[in-house]
Amino acid sequence: MKIESVDFFYLSMPEVLNIGDGSQDALLVRIQAGETVGWGECEAAPLPSIASLICPMSHSACKPVQASVLGQRLDGIEDITRIGNLVRAESLDLLQADHTLSGIDMALWDLMGKKLNEPVYKLLGYTKIYPKTPYASMLFGDTPQETLEKGRGARAKGYRAAKFGWGPIGQGSVKADEDQFMAAREGLGDDGILLIDIGTVWNDNLEAASQRVKGLQACRATWLEEPFVSGALKEYHALAQLCGDVKLAGGEGSHNFHMAQHMIDYAGLGYVQIDAGRIGGISVAKQVADYAQAHQVTYVNHTFTSHLALSASLQPFAGLQDDVICEYPVEPKSLAIDMTANHIVRDANGQVQAPDAPGLGMTLNFSGLQPYLVDVEIRVQGKLLYQTPTLA
Amino acid sequence: MKIESVDFFYLSMPEVLNIGDGSQDALLVRIQAGETVGWGECEAAPLPSIASLICPMSHSACKPVQASVLGQRLDGIEDITRIGNLVRAESLDLLQADHTLSGIDMALWDLMGKKLNEPVYKLLGYTKIYPKTPYASMLFGDTPQETLEKGRGARAKGYRAAKFGWGPIGQGSVKADEDQFMAAREGLGDDGILLIDIGTVWNDNLEAASQRVKGLQACRATWLEEPFVSGALKEYHALAQLCGDVKLAGGEGSHNFHMAQHMIDYAGLGYVQIDAGRIGGISVAKQVADYAQAHQVTYVNHTFTSHLALSASLQPFAGLQDDVICEYPVEPKSLAIDMTANHIVRDANGQVQAPDAPGLGMTLNFSGLQPYLVDVEIRVQGKLLYQTPTLA
Repeated sequence: MKIESVDFFYLSMPEVLNIGDGSQDALLVRIQAGETVGWGECEAAPLPSIASLICPMSHSACKPVQASVLGQRLDGIEDITRIGNLVRAESLDLLQADHTLSGIDMALWDLMGKKLNEPVYKLLGYTKIYPKTPYASMLFGDTPQETLEKGRGARAKGYRAAKFGWGPIGQGSVKADEDQFMAAREGLGDDGILLIDIGTVWNDNLEAASQRVKGLQACRATWLEEPFVSGALKEYHALAQLCGDVKLAGGEGSHNFHMAQHMIDYAGLGYVQIDAGRIGGISVAKQVADYAQAHQVTYVNHTFTSHLALSASLQPFAGLQDDVICEYPVEPKSLAIDMTANHIVRDANGQVQAPDAPGLGMTLNFSGLQPYLVDVEIRVQGKLLYQTPTLA
Repeated sequence: MKIESVDFFYLSMPEVLNIGDGSQDALLVRIQAGETVGWGECEAAPLPSIASLICPMSHSACKPVQASVLGQRLDGIEDITRIGNLVRAESLDLLQADHTLSGIDMALWDLMGKKLNEPVYKLLGYTKIYPKTPYASMLFGDTPQETLEKGRGARAKGYRAAKFGWGPIGQGSVKADEDQFMAAREGLGDDGILLIDIGTVWNDNLEAASQRVKGLQACRATWLEEPFVSGALKEYHALAQLCGDVKLAGGEGSHNFHMAQHMIDYAGLGYVQIDAGRIGGISVAKQVADYAQAHQVTYVNHTFTSHLALSASLQPFAGLQDDVICEYPVEPKSLAIDMTANHIVRDANGQVQAPDAPGLGMTLNFSGLQPYLVDVEIRVQGKLLYQTPTLA
């Protein structure tokens, strides 16, 4: 079959707040080939990604993303790899292209899964699917007492694992951070899986990080996430040497295979966190999962939006039995919930897994999405290059 | 003073061809603060960069670039650093932002230079300016004979240095490539500086590269450029060990400091090539030049567009006496020439240098640019978010 259409839909909450919540808008992707339709989602600023899909060509290595997708043959999963490589080559100098490709790649896998009547994880080569332990992702409280109560709340909701991040952490005194760490541990309980996220606050300041190592060890954190920006490989590596049982986690900012590879090769990570909606889709995420396995680094998804994105992000490591922790959007905005008619819910053991259904196994909720649809028009030299398509 | 306006102008040749010539369009940046105006240029796909400037906020770390620029204080050069850091933090998840920031950063340096009546290179801390040896950048001919003649032609035009790249190179037999290498050397003459550019054709195929090392040594190439994609650090490093006197060059794809740093730290480069229009502007390019100096790697600009971009790209290493090779657009499209009223021309020794004039020292050619101006309109929910401003 041939790829006949690639449509992007910008969806948004009526009001977007200045907070670190990535579920406030979304960029949904629909691809049609023959009689089959696939859906994906870019974890990307919607308007620049739409522009990168349809912009005029700048030169032979700076083409709009759709130039490498529309009209392409799609007869097997090897065509998905081929199309991804084509986008990376023909849009080499278009920076936004990796984020744009990500949702397209997901939609291609969904489409091929539906066509072949197989779940995506099987098309990726996994024969068995293993349940994952979702962690509740939360902000640190303004006070240790508040953090403690948040930890208890997560436990009460049945989450054995919780991640605390952002808020005041890393910005006050070492003692203040240590109090927060211990409060999180107390709230979550002795047997909880405690994850700490610094959200790159220390940029590349190794000393600020080093001073907190004792506190992180004392609260028995499983991982310390994003102490530094992704590029600070040397600082990551030096910190990893000091951390002992507390492993470093990072990688969500990677927008291609090599960036994730560098973190595995040079940063001394224990956990590599990959957003399939940024790194180039399920194809590249699976490539990272394979590389991580071969290098004794644990793979974790990064997912903060809809259950369509969640299904896509679970596929690349669905068959890895030991890589058991997964990010699970615990309190997303209504848009992310309303995206799909079905949802990936926790089982009796509090665990989740990728749907055992064709493609990504998610059903879009068209009527529920209408109120979120953002009307966009882009004209170049008077010619209408993009107009929000009908969502159905 | 306060930044009062940030305006982007999409300029294009009437027809853009499917060839590797980056001078076919341009994205010009104008910034006004108080009575002073500064100009810069993004080496970026224009439409996605315009969208990243003005798009609605997605969340606290995915804001439009202009949110961190408009209205900011600009009282000294330290404010340029501050604004760059702000863009990187507040647009962390907006991939295109680095390319967009690049032209803004240039315009801020141009503006501060004009305000303080100093050339940018002096504001960067250099006290003296050293001339650079421009190389003529050319495609390999379809046959060795054609390549030989191109080499002779460059020499006849007074270029001692020439770079041959793309075309058939790297894609046929080893023998075919060796014949091309030797033809280039013969055409350029014994004392010419011969540079070879593979244009990432080998992706990360170390063996394909290794087989050509003997040929590259035989033709006494000064550098081998982009044998692999930027991320293939291990393959770069392994190849560097085999190459002897032929040094590796790369880095033009870097869109932040850390990517360039990784190439210096891990890829075994002899030359790091930085496009100030992509890496985040003059500020980040200078940071790379400093880092390269400290690590015995030679800095080279990557410039393929206008003389405004050329001036900006020369500033970061203007004061480095030993880093003498520079890329110089030899046959750009008329748009790139018509961008400015004045030009950076070769002196009697065939060398060039950054203008010794306030700011970037370039005068825009408004009337000449009018025919190239592309009319763009972007509407979101019926509201006009961008319309091509008047260029004057």
